[in-house]
Amino acid sequence: MARLVLKFGGTSVRDIERIKSVALRVKREVDAGHEIAVVVSAMAGVTNQLVDWVGQISRLHDAREYDAVVASGEQVTAGLVALALQDLGVNARSWLGWQIPLETDGVHGKARIGEITTAEIERRFGEGQVAVVAGFQGIGPDQRITTLGRGGSDTSAVALAAALRADRCDIFTDVDGVYTTDPRIVTKARKLDRITYEEMLEMASQGAKVLQTRSVEMAMNHSVRVQVLSSFVDAPGTLVVDEDEIVEQQVVSGIAYSRDEAKVTLLRVADRPGVAASIFGPLADHAINVDMIVQNVSEDGRATDLTFTVAKADLERALAVLEQSREQLGFHSLKPDSNVVKISVIGVGMRSHAGVAKQMFQTLADKGINIQVISTSEIKVSVLIAEEYTELALRALHTAYGLDAA
Amino acid sequence: MARLVLKFGGTSVRDIERIKSVALRVKREVDAGHEIAVVVSAMAGVTNQLVDWVGQISRLHDAREYDAVVASGEQVTAGLVALALQDLGVNARSWLGWQIPLETDGVHGKARIGEITTAEIERRFGEGQVAVVAGFQGIGPDQRITTLGRGGSDTSAVALAAALRADRCDIFTDVDGVYTTDPRIVTKARKLDRITYEEMLEMASQGAKVLQTRSVEMAMNHSVRVQVLSSFVDAPGTLVVDEDEIVEQQVVSGIAYSRDEAKVTLLRVADRPGVAASIFGPLADHAINVDMIVQNVSEDGRATDLTFTVAKADLERALAVLEQSREQLGFHSLKPDSNVVKISVIGVGMRSHAGVAKQMFQTLADKGINIQVISTSEIKVSVLIAEEYTELALRALHTAYGLDAA
Repeated sequence: MARLVLKFGGTSVRDIERIKSVALRVKREVDAGHEIAVVVSAMAGVTNQLVDWVGQISRLHDAREYDAVVASGEQVTAGLVALALQDLGVNARSWLGWQIPLETDGVHGKARIGEITTAEIERRFGEGQVAVVAGFQGIGPDQRITTLGRGGSDTSAVALAAALRADRCDIFTDVDGVYTTDPRIVTKARKLDRITYEEMLEMASQGAKVLQTRSVEMAMNHSVRVQVLSSFVDAPGTLVVDEDEIVEQQVVSGIAYSRDEAKVTLLRVADRPGVAASIFGPLADHAINVDMIVQNVSEDGRATDLTFTVAKADLERALAVLEQSREQLGFHSLKPDSNVVKISVIGVGMRSHAGVAKQMFQTLADKGINIQVISTSEIKVSVLIAEEYTELALRALHTAYGLDAA
Repeated sequence: MARLVLKFGGTSVRDIERIKSVALRVKREVDAGHEIAVVVSAMAGVTNQLVDWVGQISRLHDAREYDAVVASGEQVTAGLVALALQDLGVNARSWLGWQIPLETDGVHGKARIGEITTAEIERRFGEGQVAVVAGFQGIGPDQRITTLGRGGSDTSAVALAAALRADRCDIFTDVDGVYTTDPRIVTKARKLDRITYEEMLEMASQGAKVLQTRSVEMAMNHSVRVQVLSSFVDAPGTLVVDEDEIVEQQVVSGIAYSRDEAKVTLLRVADRPGVAASIFGPLADHAINVDMIVQNVSEDGRATDLTFTVAKADLERALAVLEQSREQLGFHSLKPDSNVVKISVIGVGMRSHAGVAKQMFQTLADKGINIQVISTSEIKVSVLIAEEYTELALRALHTAYGLDAA
């Protein structure tokens, strides 16, 4: 007997037909004798509709009201899935964030999970009851509904799995696992049987949309074994696990890409101590995250060029913030560029293998692709290139690192 | 300065445009210096969609899950209306049933309201904050969401008005008041300036859909002044008040009709003591309400005919229950008839005026309309007639009682 958390995303519960399939899938695990908590997202499209309504009323909305509105989507699904389970003769009940309670901090719209009280849910496991938990939501210190940010149901599921000390957290989605790269672009992409937390974290934060970054962080911190698998295909997915559970480690496990970043270049910035702080300070104050940063060597010791990337969604605001302090920063001009893509090769094997970056640069050079910005970490090399080369670069790198399916 | 509860039904909040209009309407009362609680229904069509989903999953559903699902509609509207008010610069926050708390008994799907804790809402009145309350919902002793039954938002509003000792409860709807009869059928119908609780109660329970019966009962029991008015037309509506607030009382105030009832005739039932109990007992056990009852005089002292009405929605079940006990009851046959309408003339003036019933029977006879069943109360005379005569009967009675508009 195992204790499992099963999480179903929006496409897996998009209509009543699918909700009934989810119930059948859950019943199989119940029949196998497992203790089951189910975490559900809103039906596909519902959250977007709710967010759109809020946006139509007010651009600068009260995040507490936003949370009350958008959390309703998961409430509906939780009730419907519990009903569908009951209809199959499975003992089940729905749990809303405030009922568990799943406590969070008070940052509405982007709350972080705190204490999760699981005693009652565990007691009911003993009675054979399945807990159907509304994902994405909790309750803040103000006793109002909080939400965890888009994709937060993954985080709900992992946090619940940690609190329940579950044997595994299965994330059911519309893909059947984590691939070496996007199979829609690279037909030779392979599904990975296993991937380490660190790699998954880089894959997620570098653009692979299969799992929310925060959920992977949380899984890593609490050693929750996570499986990503399809709710439509009945096959094992990809296990996200500790490095020591992976026997033969590839040097490069996957290649991610992100079209969500934009490049900003400040031309002829004064080259003096404190200038970087005076640029990135105001951006941070406006909650604009900066990812890659490159500062050119100053030729004359007086002015330099500075390039960095921000999320495309933040570009307008970032430019406005910088224009405001143009006088103080003393830069000559500001050059935004949205037609860029960030490509990242990822693998924990890099730690012990040299030459991964070199191979990346050479492969791209061979295809005539110019690299605009480079950044690296212990298990990742990322480059920014012109967006039009996305597919070409991905395919070339996939082959170069020996990832192509036979 | 007055304290007001403003309730907006589903058509008044059917889309974002209307929600913004509601906010403007509320703002006018705030600007006039009043303390305001707003009670909202789900956006038109939403509750039906949710109920339909539940029905698609399971016919014999767990009412606790049903409640969690359908209560989400009002949650969305409460948040959106609060946001729309904030967007106009009005201090407002939403309240869900469990947050107030609005306590109910544990009868999920049809809960009755108990204690409503208004201290925090009243404290915030002092800070100029508008309370936007999700109608139709409360919290049960099991700490789960309860709902009050269809149309329950009217009841929420009146109960909240009673708990807040509000000066008035305004029910905004898609009609501009209570009419002497249905103006879609009788073009000479007049809007009433005032109507007594008792009359409104009869109008509501006899088929006028403008207010939920339970909400009128509650208004009467707690002396809450209720106004029914249009959310689209800017004009006073109809005030529902105590009898002593109405100076000149008509003998007949209104004429209601209901097509929701069906007639059942049991032919040749054994005429012995206890037979009525043995018929209506099992129906009551199956929660089937019986309205009108007529028992014919027995000609031979051995068998009689018995006619009664039930809600059309209950007809199938009523027939099944009776068939089950056919042996025991010893009736000869069972005749259902759905093609009937109940017409009721209503007025507190009847108490002191004779001849109201006689005038009704004569008016119908003059038009050649056969009366099938009659029932009366202190302030009401109801008759069951063939459904095809509905319009003819309503128009003739409206004229006969002097209700036609000039």
